[in-house]
Amino acid sequence: MSAFTMNEIVSLAKMRGIVFPGSEIYDGLANSWDYGPIGVEMKNNVKRAWWKKFVQESPYNVGLDAAILMNPKTWVASGHVGGFNDPLMDCKSCKTRFRADKLIEDYFHAKGEEAVVDGWSNEKMMDFIRENHIKCPECGAEDFTDIRQFNLMFKTFQGVTEDSSSEIYLRPETAQGIFVNFKNVQRTTRKKIPFGIGQIGKSFRNEITPGNFIFRTREFEQMELEFFCEPGTDLEWFTYWKDFCRNWLFSLGMKEENVRFRDHEKEELSHYSNATTDVEFLFPFGWGELWGIADRTDFDLTQHQNVSGKDMQYQDPVTNEKYLPYVIEPSLGADRMFLAFLCNAMEKETLENGEERNVMKIHPALSAYKAAVLPLSKKLSEKATEVYAQLAKHFMVDYDEAGSIGKRYRRQDEIGTPICITVDFDTQEDNAVTLRDRDTMEQVRLPIDEVVGYIEKKMDF
Amino acid sequence: MSAFTMNEIVSLAKMRGIVFPGSEIYDGLANSWDYGPIGVEMKNNVKRAWWKKFVQESPYNVGLDAAILMNPKTWVASGHVGGFNDPLMDCKSCKTRFRADKLIEDYFHAKGEEAVVDGWSNEKMMDFIRENHIKCPECGAEDFTDIRQFNLMFKTFQGVTEDSSSEIYLRPETAQGIFVNFKNVQRTTRKKIPFGIGQIGKSFRNEITPGNFIFRTREFEQMELEFFCEPGTDLEWFTYWKDFCRNWLFSLGMKEENVRFRDHEKEELSHYSNATTDVEFLFPFGWGELWGIADRTDFDLTQHQNVSGKDMQYQDPVTNEKYLPYVIEPSLGADRMFLAFLCNAMEKETLENGEERNVMKIHPALSAYKAAVLPLSKKLSEKATEVYAQLAKHFMVDYDEAGSIGKRYRRQDEIGTPICITVDFDTQEDNAVTLRDRDTMEQVRLPIDEVVGYIEKKMDF
Repeated sequence: MSAFTMNEIVSLAKMRGIVFPGSEIYDGLANSWDYGPIGVEMKNNVKRAWWKKFVQESPYNVGLDAAILMNPKTWVASGHVGGFNDPLMDCKSCKTRFRADKLIEDYFHAKGEEAVVDGWSNEKMMDFIRENHIKCPECGAEDFTDIRQFNLMFKTFQGVTEDSSSEIYLRPETAQGIFVNFKNVQRTTRKKIPFGIGQIGKSFRNEITPGNFIFRTREFEQMELEFFCEPGTDLEWFTYWKDFCRNWLFSLGMKEENVRFRDHEKEELSHYSNATTDVEFLFPFGWGELWGIADRTDFDLTQHQNVSGKDMQYQDPVTNEKYLPYVIEPSLGADRMFLAFLCNAMEKETLENGEERNVMKIHPALSAYKAAVLPLSKKLSEKATEVYAQLAKHFMVDYDEAGSIGKRYRRQDEIGTPICITVDFDTQEDNAVTLRDRDTMEQVRLPIDEVVGYIEKKMDF
Repeated sequence: MSAFTMNEIVSLAKMRGIVFPGSEIYDGLANSWDYGPIGVEMKNNVKRAWWKKFVQESPYNVGLDAAILMNPKTWVASGHVGGFNDPLMDCKSCKTRFRADKLIEDYFHAKGEEAVVDGWSNEKMMDFIRENHIKCPECGAEDFTDIRQFNLMFKTFQGVTEDSSSEIYLRPETAQGIFVNFKNVQRTTRKKIPFGIGQIGKSFRNEITPGNFIFRTREFEQMELEFFCEPGTDLEWFTYWKDFCRNWLFSLGMKEENVRFRDHEKEELSHYSNATTDVEFLFPFGWGELWGIADRTDFDLTQHQNVSGKDMQYQDPVTNEKYLPYVIEPSLGADRMFLAFLCNAMEKETLENGEERNVMKIHPALSAYKAAVLPLSKKLSEKATEVYAQLAKHFMVDYDEAGSIGKRYRRQDEIGTPICITVDFDTQEDNAVTLRDRDTMEQVRLPIDEVVGYIEKKMDF
């Protein structure tokens, strides 16, 4: 068994219809990507698996789907208009543009040290770069422009005029759509604290250096939960949701050695945060953040209360006490979660007979197809189509009658189909089929009527 | 039984957590809306019901999820850069802004006549307005500015400079993400013509006059299928998909009297279209388009082939003949489909005892909750919570222990929950519960273990 490199993952994704380069016939658009027929099913399954545990089965949480375009005051209150900037500088010699914080981080990494540059002032970064003689990674020169702040929100104009009065932003995170609706949701659901609101949706950040395939893209999808609790109970709930996230990952087949939970040190915490943990995954390019789990106290609701002038407090129905709840936020990127499950699952195996196979050992809840129907002969098309139609009412099923059965198995292994169903000449007589397991390659024969139940059991998590 | 007005629908939606005004604490943003805890489930169900029939169960179709941000050449090829404009004019007297085509249409409607202004030149519209002395609907003046073309695509800038080289658009439709990927999808799935590609996703149009609740919004979600077939077979497939759409609507409880299929006349057709049908729904504000089903011939693939210089042809594996397939496009708005199902389902009923109730008679596949668990007494919380947890593994379930059982029924009726499950003191002994049907209000008693199967059967469509 050996692992896939990032390049192998990208080329497999393109070859098997998992992820294509975006706008490819026009030579692409920066680091944009389109999910193909296999990828869209897998990504939808990741989103469904999150919704199932974080919303559907949770007695605490409900869902929401707020608009991408919001009143721009939202981003004044959230701090994104004032503070959501990257510190940019150019090399005067070769004109390449850099993020100053990344230059410094790379400098530390090259020495084998970890560094946290978050929160450094422009001046501190400039001084550090000069004093340590950090050079342009492109041309080696030591001559940079001053640092300037670049806001990462995408701007657009609503209506027919293009002036500041019609300027709006594409949301840089889904979280604020939840905060502005806190009272609406509480009032209509009559939920009592503690309760949470979950949301899945697209966000946009004008990243200077997107990259690493779908790990960092300008357009991306988030799965965020904002969990509202009584001040003082927040650290308890922080631990609860940290464990909840961990269990979710492991119940879906995440390997322990591929994940680490990194608690932020005191000095690394945002000024409003009581605790933060990054959940990181070991991608082929190194450790990368999946989940940010943060105790955000009452920072966001306070900001919105101040800027909107609306009362954002919760009134306890028993004590009648009014207060701003504290918030625990587990915030996850759907695209990088998808990529992590993909990397976690891809294996190259040498079989007993010496043959090699690529196999995506992904949890059946996440695989694009739950089964593939493979007639042993084209003469069996009619029966096989019947089996396909019966199963397709319940879940996604592939149908493949091209090539040798061995080749068809390999194709399905590579896209993670957990069960291959062979329809043979006996099937016409006994209404039974042979099920071949993706991981063990073992086979069992089952009556057709039992196949749905057999497969649905495997999808459970 | 009587119907809901549009105002009643909007206020019900707000009161019950179906749809909230967007960014409400900041006094909103034009006509933007957020889906609340009930609405997000219903809308997801509409999308799932579409995907189930149009992708999952279809032996012809596969899915895709392309990025919202695409290379701008896409929109040159599609015609959106050149031709996706609204003809705007202002009243010189009161400064109100109008769409010239709408002014003319309203003029015809006021006379009880239908009009098709699509495709009229600016000059023709100006002349018509002058000759017929059409007046400003706001102030009555007869003094308009010239017509100017306003492009409906939202513009933004990618990267750090704001000049035309970094100008990109928010996609105004999902269809082009499918066309540019036609070869990628065909190659990786090895699908043979005829086959289709379905996609669900957000699109954006800078409408001058959004309105009618979620019927016309600047940010909206589409469910589009592009079905590729051999030229000459297109009208046959056009009929196939028209019937398919009709069946989908009716299988989900759409009332026949609320829907009409309006075939376009020859002179109404786009120059490239062989046939087009609008599926319209009778909203409380009048007939409005749900689905546009169009035979687009090879227009889109030809355009992309010309602009990209890439070969977009399909090669028939039997005859080796190469050709550009024709395309049938059933294009549906998810938000207005959701609104149509909501309006179709809301009823005010007078019961036998003279009481009134609001009931959302929506298909159980589309209802937010499939069941609500109602303990008859707070002393039964433990047992009821157990029942809730058992069911919530399978579908969305509400839990409500507040208020009289009658009030709780009314609340669930109004949000469309098909089954109310009462947990009573006998339940602790016999492990059975009482199921009350939303529409008939009849009750049956069932062992708890049979409830999931009973409800899942009702969700079938």
